Amino acid sequence: MSAIITLTTDFGSGSPYVAAMKGAILGINPLVRLVDISHDVNPQDVHHGAVLLAEAATWFPPATIHAAVVDPGVGTQRKLIYARIGDGQYLAPDNGLLSLLAKRHKPARIVQLTNSEIWLPDVSNTFHGRDIIAPAAAQLSLGLEPERLGPSIHEMLMLDWPEPRRMENRIEGAVRWIDRFGNLITNINAGLLADEKNVSTLRIQCARHDIVGLSQAYGQRSPGDLTALVGASGYLEIAVVNGSAAQMLKLQVGASVIVES
Amino acid sequence: MSAIITLTTDFGSGSPYVAAMKGAILGINPLVRLVDISHDVNPQDVHHGAVLLAEAATWFPPATIHAAVVDPGVGTQRKLIYARIGDGQYLAPDNGLLSLLAKRHKPARIVQLTNSEIWLPDVSNTFHGRDIIAPAAAQLSLGLEPERLGPSIHEMLMLDWPEPRRMENRIEGAVRWIDRFGNLITNINAGLLADEKNVSTLRIQCARHDIVGLSQAYGQRSPGDLTALVGASGYLEIAVVNGSAAQMLKLQVGASVIVES
Amino acid sequence: MSAIITLTTDFGSGSPYVAAMKGAILGINPLVRLVDISHDVNPQDVHHGAVLLAEAATWFPPATIHAAVVDPGVGTQRKLIYARIGDGQYLAPDNGLLSLLAKRHKPARIVQLTNSEIWLPDVSNTFHGRDIIAPAAAQLSLGLEPERLGPSIHEMLMLDWPEPRRMENRIEGAVRWIDRFGNLITNINAGLLADEKNVSTLRIQCARHDIVGLSQAYGQRSPGDLTALVGASGYLEIAVVNGSAAQMLKLQVGASVIVES
Repeated sequence: MSAIITLTTDFGSGSPYVAAMKGAILGINPLVRLVDISHDVNPQDVHHGAVLLAEAATWFPPATIHAAVVDPGVGTQRKLIYARIGDGQYLAPDNGLLSLLAKRHKPARIVQLTNSEIWLPDVSNTFHGRDIIAPAAAQLSLGLEPERLGPSIHEMLMLDWPEPRRMENRIEGAVRWIDRFGNLITNINAGLLADEKNVSTLRIQCARHDIVGLSQAYGQRSPGDLTALVGASGYLEIAVVNGSAAQMLKLQVGASVIVES
Repeated sequence: MSAIITLTTDFGSGSPYVAAMKGAILGINPLVRLVDISHDVNPQDVHHGAVLLAEAATWFPPATIHAAVVDPGVGTQRKLIYARIGDGQYLAPDNGLLSLLAKRHKPARIVQLTNSEIWLPDVSNTFHGRDIIAPAAAQLSLGLEPERLGPSIHEMLMLDWPEPRRMENRIEGAVRWIDRFGNLITNINAGLLADEKNVSTLRIQCARHDIVGLSQAYGQRSPGDLTALVGASGYLEIAVVNGSAAQMLKLQVGASVIVES
Repeated sequence: MSAIITLTTDFGSGSPYVAAMKGAILGINPLVRLVDISHDVNPQDVHHGAVLLAEAATWFPPATIHAAVVDPGVGTQRKLIYARIGDGQYLAPDNGLLSLLAKRHKPARIVQLTNSEIWLPDVSNTFHGRDIIAPAAAQLSLGLEPERLGPSIHEMLMLDWPEPRRMENRIEGAVRWIDRFGNLITNINAGLLADEKNVSTLRIQCARHDIVGLSQAYGQRSPGDLTALVGASGYLEIAVVNGSAAQMLKLQVGASVIVES
């Protein structure tokens, strides 16, 4: 009864659409614990939503129910799905929103949400987050078996998540997302860097800037300095001490980052 | 004890004023469930607050207590009120903040908050949300009878909520609010459009643009296309597929929207 | 088990870092009640965080656990601390984030967080909020004695919080923070003004503007008027009726405000 449901959407902080989803959930399970992951996913940006969800969801207790809605195709033929990934449970449109998580951990089960007995009585064409995903999450939190949501299916839609290219003395990666501090978080996992003999002589290249050596912490260099380090999620990131690397380098998601040893 | 209190204010997401209200509520009922509707009401914009509240509040379970504070008149002669509207309970300044809800459902009871025994011991002149509404909400959540808040009154202040004008082959409405996606949500209820024989030949006019036919979903037309459809709350809305109609049409709340059959 | 933990950070509303902290806390105590104070502290601005925390925290019930993370020095030699201040419990980096609270109420106990048995198994160099403060807060919420967190220490780092200068007919103060409405909240406590015989003849000077007399409420003057009053936290503030004083006067935190009798 006191299960946890998290919410991730592109509705914007303070959107009445988020509150409507919460109201719909609480109408079915008034004791569930609601936690916001983010409602500031860039509008209709499924990649961005997938990254924020993957960053946060794995920190929640086992069996947490994660409801995610970035859904430009609402009302069209795209499916809605439930997936068990790692020890978390996920509900989302089948548009790739779960695909970064699914790339890291193969889903143990995928179910298509077709059982309309679970849904709100009147389903709109434009807000399946409230009318289908919210009641499905609430029913799961009350103990409903996932197979009651609909039939098992074998695949979900996977977006392209480019992997860094590993060459002899060189790793070619890219910026995957940018946080509020303007830190540029790449797709280069710490594991790749661990192979390097000497992190103090690595050269990190980004927007024609060269950074020599990996820092251990943001505050190890002087304010205003560009620095590279392994961030809190285990990926290489480019930062400016007490400043914004995104602003200084004028970079976007997808920008190239090269590590040379 | 585990009742739900929602909060709607113009204090801004992350405002310490919101947290102070929550602290004051939890000091009286530590087990109450707090849910944010929105704190991003435009500063002192009672109309905007009334729309966001009406959009979200009706999705909550019966007897939910909705505390709303958009209160430019705090400390002056304006009243504070409790109202039972539909199956929800509302606390707000009597400045029209509840009047869109009250227009849709006649309030079953209105009470003026005058019983200072319920309030925090020291009431400021500038923050009745924290000092009067928060403790009143907390006491209601513990089972206090609404009549204990003060005397019943017969009316609340009603703002002007223009209705669309229905003519022979024409409905003249207006944009009522704009969501984060830039969708323009009008005051034209789906019920009005249901009278039309053929929705595929309706012409929707807005900022010198003509849209022919109602879509069923945002994704039915091509990215960048202007489209009109009945949105999640049952009102006609103007949208741009994967874009922002507000930005494309440079329209504000109040702009004219005309439907011709 | 149903203790309250509040969160104050500079991660930004909707940051996955906030959600990761919440997930880590709920993994240890799934029944704790989480309340956001603010995640909109200006990035790395410890002064700003200290003010928002002090504004909100004292409104929470006794024994509430307040976790605060504005931490530009994460991973360097700065300490992490627990402090009992007034009837609240606080966890934060020892960089002055608790020092406005500690200036108002001498801490009854300060503990340095050194007991790594309490921490998450893998502690990153860049996110002690998630890896150390979150589990410490969760353990406290389950009843852990603060002395289990580490050794008692005698001091915390105090930032400079300038006091207003009181002269014969004059008080020289400064703007301490600016809220969402653009109200300029000063460091001049209502107590200082209470000594004045006649508040209606006080002259408040700010950015070459003169305001004569203190108002009781924002709405006492006409829309657009500059006004001065004692705000909800008991400090003198400069406001514009239905507008923004920060915008009108183009002032920043630290700007001089002078009261003459």
